[in-house]
Amino acid sequence: MRFSCTTDISGWRNSSGRPWRSSFPRRCATRISRVLSPSPRWRSARTSAGPGCIIGSTERPRTGPGRNGAFAGPGVTSGPFWPNTSISSTFRNWNFTRTTGPRRPKGWRSFLKDSSREKIREIFEGPGPFLLATHVQPDADGLSCVLAVHLFFKARGVESYPLIEDDPPEFLDFLHGFGDLLRPEALPRRPQECVALVFDLSEAQRLGGLAELVLAARERVILDHHAVSGQALSGLLLQDPRAPATAFLVYQILRDLGGLLPEVAENLYVGLYSDTGGFRFENTREEAFLAAADLVRAGARPAWVGERLLENYPPARFELLSRVLERREVFAGGRAVVSWLTLKDFEEVGARPGEAEDFATFLRSMRGVKVSALVKELKPGEIGVSLRSRGEVDVARIAASQGGGGHVRAAGFRQREKTLPEVLDLVRGLLSSVLEVRA
Amino acid sequence: MRFSCTTDISGWRNSSGRPWRSSFPRRCATRISRVLSPSPRWRSARTSAGPGCIIGSTERPRTGPGRNGAFAGPGVTSGPFWPNTSISSTFRNWNFTRTTGPRRPKGWRSFLKDSSREKIREIFEGPGPFLLATHVQPDADGLSCVLAVHLFFKARGVESYPLIEDDPPEFLDFLHGFGDLLRPEALPRRPQECVALVFDLSEAQRLGGLAELVLAARERVILDHHAVSGQALSGLLLQDPRAPATAFLVYQILRDLGGLLPEVAENLYVGLYSDTGGFRFENTREEAFLAAADLVRAGARPAWVGERLLENYPPARFELLSRVLERREVFAGGRAVVSWLTLKDFEEVGARPGEAEDFATFLRSMRGVKVSALVKELKPGEIGVSLRSRGEVDVARIAASQGGGGHVRAAGFRQREKTLPEVLDLVRGLLSSVLEVRA
Repeated sequence: MRFSCTTDISGWRNSSGRPWRSSFPRRCATRISRVLSPSPRWRSARTSAGPGCIIGSTERPRTGPGRNGAFAGPGVTSGPFWPNTSISSTFRNWNFTRTTGPRRPKGWRSFLKDSSREKIREIFEGPGPFLLATHVQPDADGLSCVLAVHLFFKARGVESYPLIEDDPPEFLDFLHGFGDLLRPEALPRRPQECVALVFDLSEAQRLGGLAELVLAARERVILDHHAVSGQALSGLLLQDPRAPATAFLVYQILRDLGGLLPEVAENLYVGLYSDTGGFRFENTREEAFLAAADLVRAGARPAWVGERLLENYPPARFELLSRVLERREVFAGGRAVVSWLTLKDFEEVGARPGEAEDFATFLRSMRGVKVSALVKELKPGEIGVSLRSRGEVDVARIAASQGGGGHVRAAGFRQREKTLPEVLDLVRGLLSSVLEVRA
Repeated sequence: MRFSCTTDISGWRNSSGRPWRSSFPRRCATRISRVLSPSPRWRSARTSAGPGCIIGSTERPRTGPGRNGAFAGPGVTSGPFWPNTSISSTFRNWNFTRTTGPRRPKGWRSFLKDSSREKIREIFEGPGPFLLATHVQPDADGLSCVLAVHLFFKARGVESYPLIEDDPPEFLDFLHGFGDLLRPEALPRRPQECVALVFDLSEAQRLGGLAELVLAARERVILDHHAVSGQALSGLLLQDPRAPATAFLVYQILRDLGGLLPEVAENLYVGLYSDTGGFRFENTREEAFLAAADLVRAGARPAWVGERLLENYPPARFELLSRVLERREVFAGGRAVVSWLTLKDFEEVGARPGEAEDFATFLRSMRGVKVSALVKELKPGEIGVSLRSRGEVDVARIAASQGGGGHVRAAGFRQREKTLPEVLDLVRGLLSSVLEVRA
């Protein structure tokens, strides 16, 4: 059991107005009291907690100033945020007990049996109305959570508004409830009346134009499986970087509430399948399969989902892939591969740059290749580079050296002052030098 | 409970010489006695049993003639076979009980608690020596079962010989125990001394050159998840067309025997992952995910397996795919797509026709496409056609009309008297007429 807290939460109250501590189960009392008066040891434990589940509130105390203040726009470092204070614990060390309720799978351990989770449960069972939001350019995980929770509320007769700012991604139009997605301007409620549920992100700038509405809401719950890198959104935060997908967190909550309707389960399965790369990324652990089994029991159809996710590529994509393959260039002794696409390519086939999203990953699948790159013109004068690695090469570092970012295995950067051949040369040079082979 | 039997098995004896019936658990006694004296009702039940588990013996009675007779070569309809007599039951109706033993997952129901399974258990726990075999051109499922069971025996100090006739498939060289694979001529034992375990097939002709050894063995166990279409191998047959993979059947047996070592589990995971198409074919049911979770718990690494199976394509394959994409031809209003490869293509890139195995499936993934075809020259004067469908079109019927065969979603046929352009024309015509669109 590891714990940390850098702020005094003793004054905080839950949504029913009771002090937070009162909703802690009795067996947690000792731990909680230590959290309430943190010692230097606890504080240091925070940074050493390693991968685990962060659960707690990043909200300002109710008595403090600035709550529901105005949002200063993307990238702000002040405003209605509270320094990232959270209770960290290694998920596995909690003593969960089995809750009673409908349709729990065998071996199920309740996810909502500690303090903040109890609060999350209260909110999910509350009267709403709810705003549901995910990050800009939503992926399958984010959007599947929004729509799963939306259908859960809808079935209970609770007002719920799944918001989307961008054009809804066409390849996800098979998600249940897709037609209910709402533009922010069509919201029939004042955001101040609503509870905002935010999925798959924990930083305000990734909300894009939805940030204003979400930050104006009377309460915020943030469910995320990414590590926070920037300024965290204020609100009640459930964050577990060990979770294979945000859909996995939502699954656990809805399962506990008996809300896994077939359509809800199928949406969540989409998120889980997608964020584990079809059960083959490093985040595919036993839990992912147990959740999948349970979602299938609840009504998700793996073959149906698989066909819609993986066998539904627009013909334009085939033409793009054909060009990418034709232009592929293997170098550094077969350990690196690069290819490219121009704006003209996208125009000719009638595709958006987003359609080429995972071609860099596809190039990486060549035997012997350690690192792959796709160079593509995004708009006149702007060239994007997607880098993929099998883990031996840290492409996040390569990207960072060019002002970009990402993860060890997937990263990218942009170039504004070079032509496409120059960027190709740059990429060849970067990859060759990292692979310590003269190009 | 549905049952059928068209032969009297009362004289059969198990490997310890006891009458078969004596090893049936008591609660099965009523059922079994009805099987022993089948009524017309039982006989008719056999054909109506539908998808379910067939378990029983297709072996000739020990007292009968012809046991261990010579094998007459592929395609025989007489020889050491017994008419396909089997006890069919709908798997789910059996009353399994939980067995005690090491490391059973929660909710585990023993697989080996009825008569024939008890016999299979006896054999797996027996002294051997064992011959392990799978079909010609082994796939991941067949070979993973052979090697998983081999490692299971090896760990127990039991003699076991994993046989392979063809060149071992290079893309599976990461399977644990791959280096132990043995050519039939290197077998240090007379086959008559051995027990043969046959995986992922139940028809002798699919054994190729291994059939002779397998049929000479003193006992045979056949584990398969395909429906028998031809003449079944004689022996003790465990066949469950509802099982997602033969690896799933082996998993259940080894799990029950406490034999899921990490390497065994990882091999079986490969079979399960592969035969479910990465958990996205129709056979991906809850059981598949529960088995996957359990195999991961036992030591299988999904990301490691996924990388080796899906990110390990030879560069030649990329060149082939590039050509296939370039030559793709969409017709019938976007509902059909066809492409082709010549022998020259394979020679130029240095690949075998097997490398193009799943390009037809890849073509099917285009949005709107109902049916896809890949036409490829296999050798001078012989052209193979692979057909894939999403299920609405029955490609098995199309293939059958040309003397080929297969399943509704995946089938194929060969042509010997036509040129490649003629075959392409034929395929266009066949697909167009099935889609009821004039080409």
